[in-house]
Amino acid sequence: MSFTISAIGHVVGGRIPAEDDAWDAVSAQIDLDGSRFGPDALHGLVQFSHAEIIYLFDQLPESQITTTARRPRGNPDWPLTGIFAQRGRNRPNRLAVSVCRIVRVEGTSLHVTGLDAIDGTPVIDIKPVLTGFLPRGAVREPSWAREIMADYW
Amino acid sequence: MSFTISAIGHVVGGRIPAEDDAWDAVSAQIDLDGSRFGPDALHGLVQFSHAEIIYLFDQLPESQITTTARRPRGNPDWPLTGIFAQRGRNRPNRLAVSVCRIVRVEGTSLHVTGLDAIDGTPVIDIKPVLTGFLPRGAVREPSWAREIMADYW
Repeated sequence: MSFTISAIGHVVGGRIPAEDDAWDAVSAQIDLDGSRFGPDALHGLVQFSHAEIIYLFDQLPESQITTTARRPRGNPDWPLTGIFAQRGRNRPNRLAVSVCRIVRVEGTSLHVTGLDAIDGTPVIDIKPVLTGFLPRGAVREPSWAREIMADYW
Repeated sequence: MSFTISAIGHVVGGRIPAEDDAWDAVSAQIDLDGSRFGPDALHGLVQFSHAEIIYLFDQLPESQITTTARRPRGNPDWPLTGIFAQRGRNRPNRLAVSVCRIVRVEGTSLHVTGLDAIDGTPVIDIKPVLTGFLPRGAVREPSWAREIMADYW
């Protein structure tokens, strides 16, 4: 069952090229598609500290999508892990979900820091972070999942 | 700019019809599309306590999508809020991102609790919850965002 999605806007700024680490120092903005959205679409967003951005890894050739298991970042120290048990970009549908800090909203532009997406990335959705949608209960994860994040932000 | 996405599987169980609250009591499973995925795709997921599910609000007619601002749940007590400053379903691209608890994995089925999706919902992606991808720094939100979640789970 297939569906069509459209970019609601694009990342402007951010990093070129992509690197794997130290994203929190990166400032960027998301410019909404002005032909479809006005400032109303972002009204009230600035009352939140964080936003969750759904974006597309559009630079990843579809031929590189994994449907089975691979080692995260290809690191031999980390275990063979299913594509749905990791957050790597080589995934079916190539969608990322990432939380960044809201700096300000100007018209149809959302200014953020710590968005791990490169310049030109198509943005599919913007959602505010509500504490009520964070994980309920303690979060458990394997050791590789902590190790892979050590220098990420 | 448009892109095609495909369901990687579907929600089985869960609730019929949708209600707005008390989702944590709901058990469901996500069955991967067996023609494209084997158990390898979920390998290691059970080492995580929580998963983030991207799914499609496929029951929402595209004619009901909002591109401007509306009051969350249409509640007159809550402020007019941009569609990208709330998480309501009437949104461009109709995608949900929701965190649920992992109960177990059996073959190509992921058993969960607290997934706020109804039976038959197309699932677009499954990602493990890594503590490193949770919001960095304190989360700030307006009062309506706490009130709307009071009975949700």
